[in-house]
Amino acid sequence: MIFTSRRTVGDRGYGVTSERMVALAREMPGYLGIESVRGPDGTGITVSYWTSEESIAAWKQEVEHQDAQQKGKQEWYQRYSVRIARVERAYTGPDEP
Amino acid sequence: MIFTSRRTVGDRGYGVTSERMVALAREMPGYLGIESVRGPDGTGITVSYWTSEESIAAWKQEVEHQDAQQKGKQEWYQRYSVRIARVERAYTGPDEP
Repeated sequence: MIFTSRRTVGDRGYGVTSERMVALAREMPGYLGIESVRGPDGTGITVSYWTSEESIAAWKQEVEHQDAQQKGKQEWYQRYSVRIARVERAYTGPDEP
Repeated sequence: MIFTSRRTVGDRGYGVTSERMVALAREMPGYLGIESVRGPDGTGITVSYWTSEESIAAWKQEVEHQDAQQKGKQEWYQRYSVRIARVERAYTGPDEP
């Protein structure tokens, strides 16, 4: 799941909830990993990896996460987009040390 | 294509080439868009969107981009990963203005 967002100004409780959501996601069935970066202009990209679409759907429905999503819409994000994507292949580098 | 990376210390010509690669990608057939963020710790996520796997392969083979990839392996990245993923669905928010 690729989540890109633009934050509103000010923390408004975002930082604490954001960390809590990462901790919570880690406990969900099917969770594989997360990578998250926010730049100085408030643009953020979070990519979370899951074993299946079902595990992503369960995460979206998780009660505490639902509350956070509501706050996200109301207060934290000017704009966001969610893309559900299937990883077809992957590689890492540099190959040579 | 999801490209996550950790930069080495110092610019070493990275900034100029990075901007050039974005400009070049925009001219490639099948290019749809790009989102890129780098955080204060040097971790970056760049997601570029393409119409097909063929257009991603052509971008990987592009001559100037090949040079940049080589420099990336040798100088700019401590570590990177590339994931080719197929977007299955997408939505944006907040829904309510």
